[in-house]
Amino acid sequence: MSRQFTVAAAQMGPVARADTRSQVIDRLIAMLHTANQAGATLVVFPELALTTFFPRWVIDDPEELDSYFEAEMPNNETQPLFAAAAELGIGFHLGYAEMVIEDDGSKRYFNTAIIVDRDGQIAGKYRKVHIPGHAEPQPGQTHQHLEKRYFEPGDLGFPVFRSMDGVMGMCICNDRRWPETYRVMGLQGVELVMLGYNTPSTNPFAKGEEAPHLGMFHNHLSMQAGAYQNGTWVVASAKAGMEEGIHHMGGSCIIAPTGEIAAQAQTEGDEVVTAPIDLGRGVYIRETIFNFAAHRRIEHYGLNTSRTGAEPPPA
Amino acid sequence: MSRQFTVAAAQMGPVARADTRSQVIDRLIAMLHTANQAGATLVVFPELALTTFFPRWVIDDPEELDSYFEAEMPNNETQPLFAAAAELGIGFHLGYAEMVIEDDGSKRYFNTAIIVDRDGQIAGKYRKVHIPGHAEPQPGQTHQHLEKRYFEPGDLGFPVFRSMDGVMGMCICNDRRWPETYRVMGLQGVELVMLGYNTPSTNPFAKGEEAPHLGMFHNHLSMQAGAYQNGTWVVASAKAGMEEGIHHMGGSCIIAPTGEIAAQAQTEGDEVVTAPIDLGRGVYIRETIFNFAAHRRIEHYGLNTSRTGAEPPPA
Repeated sequence: MSRQFTVAAAQMGPVARADTRSQVIDRLIAMLHTANQAGATLVVFPELALTTFFPRWVIDDPEELDSYFEAEMPNNETQPLFAAAAELGIGFHLGYAEMVIEDDGSKRYFNTAIIVDRDGQIAGKYRKVHIPGHAEPQPGQTHQHLEKRYFEPGDLGFPVFRSMDGVMGMCICNDRRWPETYRVMGLQGVELVMLGYNTPSTNPFAKGEEAPHLGMFHNHLSMQAGAYQNGTWVVASAKAGMEEGIHHMGGSCIIAPTGEIAAQAQTEGDEVVTAPIDLGRGVYIRETIFNFAAHRRIEHYGLNTSRTGAEPPPA
Repeated sequence: MSRQFTVAAAQMGPVARADTRSQVIDRLIAMLHTANQAGATLVVFPELALTTFFPRWVIDDPEELDSYFEAEMPNNETQPLFAAAAELGIGFHLGYAEMVIEDDGSKRYFNTAIIVDRDGQIAGKYRKVHIPGHAEPQPGQTHQHLEKRYFEPGDLGFPVFRSMDGVMGMCICNDRRWPETYRVMGLQGVELVMLGYNTPSTNPFAKGEEAPHLGMFHNHLSMQAGAYQNGTWVVASAKAGMEEGIHHMGGSCIIAPTGEIAAQAQTEGDEVVTAPIDLGRGVYIRETIFNFAAHRRIEHYGLNTSRTGAEPPPA
């Protein structure tokens, strides 16, 4: 058992609408090899890594819509990635659009991620809880964000998994902005959170009140706070660059339990960032300042779970 | 009604064990005038502003211990501060050690803060929930942190108050590190969180695993994340500098709802930092990315309120 190993954030440049799964898998396998050469034994790929970020469009054709989803994992097209990783002895995290076909033939759609052990077995699955955006197109915007149209909120909570000699957790994109995400996993002793994101570089819904540079600041701020406040590593991979006319931020990174960024991508394309990590690095935090058992006061947190929306006091 | 005004963080240099309340109040009133000259109409003073940070010592003499606490607020010694602020039309936030004498003569002790309206009336009270440190001295440390010895956890939750044309909240020192603090207030529509802190510049309990510069990083990281994730202003004042042989960090600051630091202290002494603020600045955040009603999924947050300590899965 080794709790010290090298981890990789495998950022992706854009995936075009016309790109095939096979083309994408070739890119992922190439990054696996790059990570392997850097000594990494765990590689984190982005959210919805296998396709373009299709929720930017209204897609009325059910057949086209379903073509972005995976009904099985692995499947014929992704099996080569699983095989290559197992051959190299590398575990990985992969985000993809998941279609569940129920017994009655009805379909359910999730924004999903998995952890695959170093022997190629799926060790855990997560379905995105915080689905951002809208169900209907918003008028007058430069681009749309229709995740609420295409995905239902995840129904698996925020589970953690013993895998690769640690306690591993996952979240996806917008989840990383919410402190509840990290805390629910922190309360299960998470030591490493893996996540991917597809985040436009400018926020068209911010009503003109948000300078573009704040996007990257908020991206890192949320993850660094989540790491520190739970004493966990966070490894985050973006799909970056100009994808189908929309620019997405990079900034893929490996964040230590101290909240420090240990490594960060320098490009907006396919790029492997690595850092040596020790899963025990956060122990001192979880035993001192964030010793939950000693300091949390759940009797005063009730609104967190009893109230969904904000309710200001009467004027 | 004006939701745009200038706010001040009134950082304090050290308070010696021998300093009198009157000496301290004179310093606070001097900073009120400085703030007034800068146009401020709300001034945030630190945690336990009226005395030295006495929880660094084991104090066995009940009479000496009680001398650090206030049984009434205002009282004869603090009344001049209330009068000066009302005269200037300035609201303020003040942290102090509160002693409650029960009907049966027993005493209870809290680490408390209040908001005082611009007409000199107390608009709200808060008692520190997250009491850090230990109840017993820790062997082999350069200094002690005995808040758990002297204070019981606050029993008022995290209330918000309509005051000074906004929705105002408070927390104290260690509370600022906990995302639950901000979220419980965010769910009540908080627009400005006031807080004070007394934080040693190095963490003697970190088992030698934390470089000194991380102290200030964690201080700001936690508050900036709390501000952004709830779309609220945060105004934070330190008691700073070398107090009774222990060095405390400064870094008092005014943080915008974007998470950006709008103003920050440059010294470790008595220093007034001001910034013009608009209580409406965070509306766009609370209506978009952190529209709680649209995006929070409380059905998956249950551990936040059902579990106090971390419980990793079976090995």
